[in-house]
Amino acid sequence: MYSVSVRSHMMIAHSLSGPVFGPAQRLHGATYVVDVEFRRSELDADGLVVDIGRATEVLHAVLSDFNYRNLDDHPGFHGRNTTTEFLARVVFDRVAEAVRRGDLGAGTRSIESMRVTLRESHVASAAFEAAIPF
Amino acid sequence: MYSVSVRSHMMIAHSLSGPVFGPAQRLHGATYVVDVEFRRSELDADGLVVDIGRATEVLHAVLSDFNYRNLDDHPGFHGRNTTTEFLARVVFDRVAEAVRRGDLGAGTRSIESMRVTLRESHVASAAFEAAIPF
Amino acid sequence: MYSVSVRSHMMIAHSLSGPVFGPAQRLHGATYVVDVEFRRSELDADGLVVDIGRATEVLHAVLSDFNYRNLDDHPGFHGRNTTTEFLARVVFDRVAEAVRRGDLGAGTRSIESMRVTLRESHVASAAFEAAIPF
Amino acid sequence: MYSVSVRSHMMIAHSLSGPVFGPAQRLHGATYVVDVEFRRSELDADGLVVDIGRATEVLHAVLSDFNYRNLDDHPGFHGRNTTTEFLARVVFDRVAEAVRRGDLGAGTRSIESMRVTLRESHVASAAFEAAIPF
Amino acid sequence: MYSVSVRSHMMIAHSLSGPVFGPAQRLHGATYVVDVEFRRSELDADGLVVDIGRATEVLHAVLSDFNYRNLDDHPGFHGRNTTTEFLARVVFDRVAEAVRRGDLGAGTRSIESMRVTLRESHVASAAFEAAIPF
Amino acid sequence: MYSVSVRSHMMIAHSLSGPVFGPAQRLHGATYVVDVEFRRSELDADGLVVDIGRATEVLHAVLSDFNYRNLDDHPGFHGRNTTTEFLARVVFDRVAEAVRRGDLGAGTRSIESMRVTLRESHVASAAFEAAIPF
Repeated sequence: MYSVSVRSHMMIAHSLSGPVFGPAQRLHGATYVVDVEFRRSELDADGLVVDIGRATEVLHAVLSDFNYRNLDDHPGFHGRNTTTEFLARVVFDRVAEAVRRGDLGAGTRSIESMRVTLRESHVASAAFEAAIPF
Repeated sequence: MYSVSVRSHMMIAHSLSGPVFGPAQRLHGATYVVDVEFRRSELDADGLVVDIGRATEVLHAVLSDFNYRNLDDHPGFHGRNTTTEFLARVVFDRVAEAVRRGDLGAGTRSIESMRVTLRESHVASAAFEAAIPF
Repeated sequence: MYSVSVRSHMMIAHSLSGPVFGPAQRLHGATYVVDVEFRRSELDADGLVVDIGRATEVLHAVLSDFNYRNLDDHPGFHGRNTTTEFLARVVFDRVAEAVRRGDLGAGTRSIESMRVTLRESHVASAAFEAAIPF
Repeated sequence: MYSVSVRSHMMIAHSLSGPVFGPAQRLHGATYVVDVEFRRSELDADGLVVDIGRATEVLHAVLSDFNYRNLDDHPGFHGRNTTTEFLARVVFDRVAEAVRRGDLGAGTRSIESMRVTLRESHVASAAFEAAIPF
Repeated sequence: MYSVSVRSHMMIAHSLSGPVFGPAQRLHGATYVVDVEFRRSELDADGLVVDIGRATEVLHAVLSDFNYRNLDDHPGFHGRNTTTEFLARVVFDRVAEAVRRGDLGAGTRSIESMRVTLRESHVASAAFEAAIPF
Repeated sequence: MYSVSVRSHMMIAHSLSGPVFGPAQRLHGATYVVDVEFRRSELDADGLVVDIGRATEVLHAVLSDFNYRNLDDHPGFHGRNTTTEFLARVVFDRVAEAVRRGDLGAGTRSIESMRVTLRESHVASAAFEAAIPF
């Protein structure tokens, strides 16, 4: 299996509901350094999994809906805890949509699976990985 | 698959038996920067794989049995080479026990597998990953 | 010159006032990975610049006043932009106070200067460094 | 599954053919920081996946055929785009050959699979992973 | 002293003349991960050393003259060895010009000094630092 | 000021005397990832601060006297606490001797100062920097 990973980041505010979160129930924030790994069994005719430039642009576009925002006010997250693992899934779903739409190039329908990792600090991260359903 | 990773470290002395180890047959030591990745298919009701704070405490507790010690004298390792890959398995087994005991919360019985990585320098690391048997 | 550095982090929400900040004028947040470097010309009788454990505790205590908070509501920052460089100075001043109070040990009055670095992402950071006035 | 990873690097020149590459169609270059992860189900009698020293030597030997070279002139790559993902496969195949030849020790025929990762910058990397066919 | 650092990178080909360079006399290449640290004694009215977004744009613009190029053919480097330390100085001079021209904002004439660091691998880097002459 | 940094590591055992060290009074160990930064005002005729290959060899040679050893038994450290900051000074002095002897090349008498950094974990490091007395 071949893979290519690109990195970007977003800076958001949010609060988390439930006693398990302790002080994180207060409004606070995070920088998420986001890696998206694209995987496929065979390279395309150019020798690529995906064009790194285009993949980075797609990732920027996905993150721009959250970047510099308070996620507590985001219409898509009403009543949900925007934990790091939850957000990894959200980014996965948005990038997968872009892959299916062909935003990364026609050949990228050959991408079979992805892993999205969000690093929230030097000591903690979360990820979501799955096949991309076409 | 969702996952969450937490990081801590331990500083130990040990020696390794067998000609393959060359100068590492002498008493020396290592800092192991330890990452534990917890994996499960579905998030819990709070939107979590595992509570990062509690997971970090469990990891600290596991490492405290080895930290600041000479592993050559550790009763659990008599006659064993405490290589980095061996220690990755030891940490895995101890954290898996804690998961089964419910030390990370009742819901963490849904954790399906883990990966434990020990970085011994900027150029070498070892890991053990497996399903958690319940 | 000898130095010792310790690392911790904080996760905060804030907004920044002024057109130069563009989208960062909105309420958002950041993880700051914080390094404090303590510097002195001579080691103490134990061979130390500062005890790493105690320095880490002092840093945790300083950051706990900001961690998991919205800095826009912090009484100490009324009317101020809590930029990364501004916060580096705030952490410097608080740690310097702790040094002067002897919270890191009596011998730490020999600490001559410090550098506080806040990494806000994998591509940007800010720092403040100065002599510690006694 | 146990694994051990070792790291080295190479510095090469190349150009890439096809409009998708934009400015990378020009002769340019890259530092690739290369990690090779060796995986097996059981440790050997010494408690090892593979000897880290020997694995590092094998990796150095593989990279020395490319290091400080213009890959456009490399006889093995005629008519091929030496993308990061393509090179990950090349390094995989060369290290797998070394494993099969016994260059890492007789016991390393128990190595079941490998992952080769090439980091080309702080924001992009590629990898190839597969079972080692014996 | 306050400082702010921003990071970008460039991917270049070059060769180095002189027996001291050994195999690096051949045409090869490098990824340089470039950090520019801007320093000043006082923050501006917005609480900034420099706007991180604008500083990043200036750094991108400076690197774009070298990125994806063979430096052996660059008209500015005729008869010069484009070592990492030499390039650190080149980037310094170009960014310093931009600061003097006001490309980072009028207030940035208060920037007193800079440090430019080029990381060429996980084990080697070079830097140039100096006051900015106005 | 120009500078070049090279990195290597050593893995040692030791114990530390005095109540301030708590559990580190027991025999334990550490991996030290060691960076040596060489500084000079002008580049040599080849465009170098120091040859990176030769500097790395000198650093390896210096560390080989400590690597894979119990520093409690090292004849040079009798009655001394081998703290991270103390060891940074020891490495500094040894590399400075090599510079003065011309082990890095005749031109390296132009090296004016050095900084030696020892990273003992992902959260703590120590350094020693000074002019090199000729």
